[in-house]
Amino acid sequence: MPIGPIRLTDRASSALRPATAARVTGGFWAERRRTNAEVSIPQGPARLESAGNLANLRAAAVGKGTFTGDFPFQDSDVHKWLEAASWQLADAPGDTELAAQVAELTGLLAAAQQADGYLQTYYQLAHPEKRWQELGWGHELYCAGHLIQAAVAHHRATGRRELLDVAERFAVLVDSVFGADKEIDGVCGHPEVETALVELYRETGERRWLELAGYFVDRRGHGLLDADVNPHLGKAYWQDHTPVRAATSVTGHAVRQLYLLAAVTDLAAETGDGELRATAERLWDAMVSSKTYLTGGLGARHEGEAFGEPYELPPDRAYAETCAAIASIQWSWRMALLTGEAKYSDLVERTLYNGFLAGVGLDGDSWLYVNPLQVREEYEGAFEPDKTARRTPWFRCACCPPNVMRLLASLPHYLASGTTGDAAGLQLHQYATGVYEAGGGRVRVETAYPWQGRIAVTIEEAPADADWTLSLRIPAWCTDFTASAPDGAAPAETHPGWLRLRRRWSPGDTLTLDLELDTRLTRPDPYVDAVRGCVAIERGPLVHCLEAVDQPPGVRFEDLTLPDDARLAAHHDPGLLGGVTVVTADGRSRGGEDVVPLTAVPYYAWANRRPGAMRVWIPRE
Amino acid sequence: MPIGPIRLTDRASSALRPATAARVTGGFWAERRRTNAEVSIPQGPARLESAGNLANLRAAAVGKGTFTGDFPFQDSDVHKWLEAASWQLADAPGDTELAAQVAELTGLLAAAQQADGYLQTYYQLAHPEKRWQELGWGHELYCAGHLIQAAVAHHRATGRRELLDVAERFAVLVDSVFGADKEIDGVCGHPEVETALVELYRETGERRWLELAGYFVDRRGHGLLDADVNPHLGKAYWQDHTPVRAATSVTGHAVRQLYLLAAVTDLAAETGDGELRATAERLWDAMVSSKTYLTGGLGARHEGEAFGEPYELPPDRAYAETCAAIASIQWSWRMALLTGEAKYSDLVERTLYNGFLAGVGLDGDSWLYVNPLQVREEYEGAFEPDKTARRTPWFRCACCPPNVMRLLASLPHYLASGTTGDAAGLQLHQYATGVYEAGGGRVRVETAYPWQGRIAVTIEEAPADADWTLSLRIPAWCTDFTASAPDGAAPAETHPGWLRLRRRWSPGDTLTLDLELDTRLTRPDPYVDAVRGCVAIERGPLVHCLEAVDQPPGVRFEDLTLPDDARLAAHHDPGLLGGVTVVTADGRSRGGEDVVPLTAVPYYAWANRRPGAMRVWIPRE
Repeated sequence: MPIGPIRLTDRASSALRPATAARVTGGFWAERRRTNAEVSIPQGPARLESAGNLANLRAAAVGKGTFTGDFPFQDSDVHKWLEAASWQLADAPGDTELAAQVAELTGLLAAAQQADGYLQTYYQLAHPEKRWQELGWGHELYCAGHLIQAAVAHHRATGRRELLDVAERFAVLVDSVFGADKEIDGVCGHPEVETALVELYRETGERRWLELAGYFVDRRGHGLLDADVNPHLGKAYWQDHTPVRAATSVTGHAVRQLYLLAAVTDLAAETGDGELRATAERLWDAMVSSKTYLTGGLGARHEGEAFGEPYELPPDRAYAETCAAIASIQWSWRMALLTGEAKYSDLVERTLYNGFLAGVGLDGDSWLYVNPLQVREEYEGAFEPDKTARRTPWFRCACCPPNVMRLLASLPHYLASGTTGDAAGLQLHQYATGVYEAGGGRVRVETAYPWQGRIAVTIEEAPADADWTLSLRIPAWCTDFTASAPDGAAPAETHPGWLRLRRRWSPGDTLTLDLELDTRLTRPDPYVDAVRGCVAIERGPLVHCLEAVDQPPGVRFEDLTLPDDARLAAHHDPGLLGGVTVVTADGRSRGGEDVVPLTAVPYYAWANRRPGAMRVWIPRE
Repeated sequence: MPIGPIRLTDRASSALRPATAARVTGGFWAERRRTNAEVSIPQGPARLESAGNLANLRAAAVGKGTFTGDFPFQDSDVHKWLEAASWQLADAPGDTELAAQVAELTGLLAAAQQADGYLQTYYQLAHPEKRWQELGWGHELYCAGHLIQAAVAHHRATGRRELLDVAERFAVLVDSVFGADKEIDGVCGHPEVETALVELYRETGERRWLELAGYFVDRRGHGLLDADVNPHLGKAYWQDHTPVRAATSVTGHAVRQLYLLAAVTDLAAETGDGELRATAERLWDAMVSSKTYLTGGLGARHEGEAFGEPYELPPDRAYAETCAAIASIQWSWRMALLTGEAKYSDLVERTLYNGFLAGVGLDGDSWLYVNPLQVREEYEGAFEPDKTARRTPWFRCACCPPNVMRLLASLPHYLASGTTGDAAGLQLHQYATGVYEAGGGRVRVETAYPWQGRIAVTIEEAPADADWTLSLRIPAWCTDFTASAPDGAAPAETHPGWLRLRRRWSPGDTLTLDLELDTRLTRPDPYVDAVRGCVAIERGPLVHCLEAVDQPPGVRFEDLTLPDDARLAAHHDPGLLGGVTVVTADGRSRGGEDVVPLTAVPYYAWANRRPGAMRVWIPRE
């Protein structure tokens, strides 16, 4: 059984199944995951302590004390950290220190939980009389969802039931209260419990959780939140503007929209509901065609943390919340499993390497809540203490850091999938050195991706007596590649986005794929007004950016231009920003004739040196 | 004595004095003011009735009832309507129906006022225990300010004291409570009372009001609002981020910033405080150089209704609140009087004809709160019920409509000024057919501006025995003009932005100015990223825009382009949009070779037909 999220049931109609085992053992992501394991996760409890989250749990356990924090969903930071730590424990079961921290926080949650299963310290401490009374803003089911996800991760990773018991008790309470013919016919202002309930169904086999998830998904968009809706933000903020099956566009609060669509996809997979599947496919296409940043970032507006209008994609005011990038990866991965189509993993890749990874500093200890594609020289940052273009040790609203931790900790499970039956095989969606087991076989991958384009896959195990299909995704950005198979044949792209080789494999067989990692200048979609007249530098899956600190002195950053026939070059600099491939380009300064040598670093690594201007989209003139 | 706002005292250090009399008798603004007088203002009371504002006053008068409305500053809509109606009464003293409405609302305010002078129905009805306890968000002093401005207008226009008595009672209470050594050392979250108090000083001669205004201006930026400040918005929202004398940039909530700076300018004028004057000059220059839209609109962000970063000027998400345009005009006119420099009236003109006037529909009965420079074909408008790109009959937060009414009603007083002494004379800042008396003389202006460039000025009265200077502003957009004087001489621009003719004048003498009204393509500032690669069409003071309804069928609006060497032509269409000069241009459709004839109407007239796409900035390719 796979130790990762999205453990599809046998009944799921998905085209692909998640890998039964996945381990990243070296290379780019191993390094980022090492920092996650050694810095980010270990210091989580201290951050939660100083932000008051743990004090809230202790106070709730004794039934008195004041609530600390600005938001009712404060507990969810604890839940997300526990999920991250649990996935990490699956990787390193011998980490007794981490296991002790997990046990301690689990104990705090169990102690804080009320006799009837309720658990949310904000309402327990500050407003016990308002339990279930403020569904729009209260986040009670949202917190329940994160608790369930943490509990499922903990159970999968350790086999222990302590946290799962807590989560199930809460879920039983929720199920007893919410329903068309129960005490409350209502939904939560922030989707999240829906996808969590599907996962709880997967973990426990209890169909009631799947049905409850379906109820929450389909009761949304019927005005049940009207009493709570702040007219200033509008119903779309709460994803209550339309029944999701009728939606034609992703809109409103980005993370709410994406968590909801993850649940829609989960339900489509587990119930075979074709209308839900069509909904998810339609909305994903709409999102990618007109509401997605080059970095994979989502959410064009600070106000309402929202998707904007189609083609409203300002680089400077990009919200592109780190959590939205994570939610997008979670949703797209579900879509990849459901449909088997490579385009979903193309977006996962773009988001992972750019819009997501920028959210955490190279030190693993400094964060960005919003991920703009441009910061001007004159940056004032007068507003939004949490939402600046400067890395911050923690946030007042600390949703993003533990969200990053849980994604990095579970990342290996987003990289490969398998199929059984007639088309048995293993699919590599993303390239990271490691070992992946799926579809009845196991492969070892070695690669220096994303710096180099070679991916060497060695068969460790495959059916001895049957053909078996090895599939490697050909990224959409890649216009040229070569591949060499064991028998010297060069397999070609056999399905859009997939290089497939079906044959009898023996352990030790290798398939080597060489993706041409051209450095390229990307022109924007002409309908994206905000970056008209600009180009962006990309190399492989990486979006690059200019940071002021790397540019020649004596030239005003805001005057730099890059003609779209500029000469480009790339070189790897192991000493820079933890080791990055740098792109240099023959730029200009507005009004000047001389070449100005520009240096572009990967976007994910920006804002790790002294604060300064940055831009992904560079004016052509 | 001038019957208009900003009645400078004799002690004011201002270079210019407002006109002692000003009347618009025909032409463009007469038409807009007629609609204001016949439609907008008369229906104000009914709007205030149905929005609950008047019910609040009646309830407060009897001391019981529930407060209706979403905002604590609901009363200020009444105050602003009363100000508008008062200026209107100055124009039409025989309008007994309007006078009766004014008397009725004045009576409601007087009845609602508490014995100690307090008057704000939100706190009276909903939270009497919180009086003065929520200065950040309560708007009590803001409402007091609008009450004072209304009372001053009423007193100037009618000579009656009923409303002035109400306002003075409230002001006395405020003065007894607020001060460095009084019950509360504090400021209001929304500046407004400061400029109103200076005007009360001007009206009553009581220096205490000037001093109280100075206190409120200088206590801001010292953290007095900390307890109330919503960290999500930051201190700049409340203009409490810095003492204003130390500010280097306009920032935060645009209307709050601009009302504050109007007061700074008022104080600089009345006290001769050079540091305040330098502050106002510095911040005005910073605003115009990097934070002002082509339309004069101000405020780049919906979130926090804020000025953005320097050069952050998205056309689609422009907030450019109608109230901010009004505040800008009010501030810039004070700067024009203080300094005598033409650039301030240049901005007044740009704002009046574009960013301001777009805020009210041609019918005088439909409004825009925000004034974007672009609406796409795919416009969804999912958010912000009040803040859409569609005209609305009234708003939940109805600050803009009565603000438009008061500016249009007092508009003649923003057009001309005078000087006395050695440099005695009259200055025409804006061109509207009418009669203007200032600086010891009186002139009659006839013009078809902004459709035609000829301005004919006839002397009706001038000193018989001394030289007298007639000054006409040469707009910054004008690159060519001719002028003919009584003796056949052609006066030239003698001071930046001013055509000045000093001589002995006789009644009947004329000075004719012909401004070349070229239709022109304007390229954006290269630092404004959001409109790179575009051009805008302007003609005289008017910014034009493409509306989808005027473009040829069969071409996608989002594909229209306008090369910057395109042929342009203009013709007047008396039947279109109340009579406008239309600009036609040889455009293209992206990817096509054929000429696509484009039609551009003045921006102020947009959104008066069926909803559709619009853009001011048109892609060059």
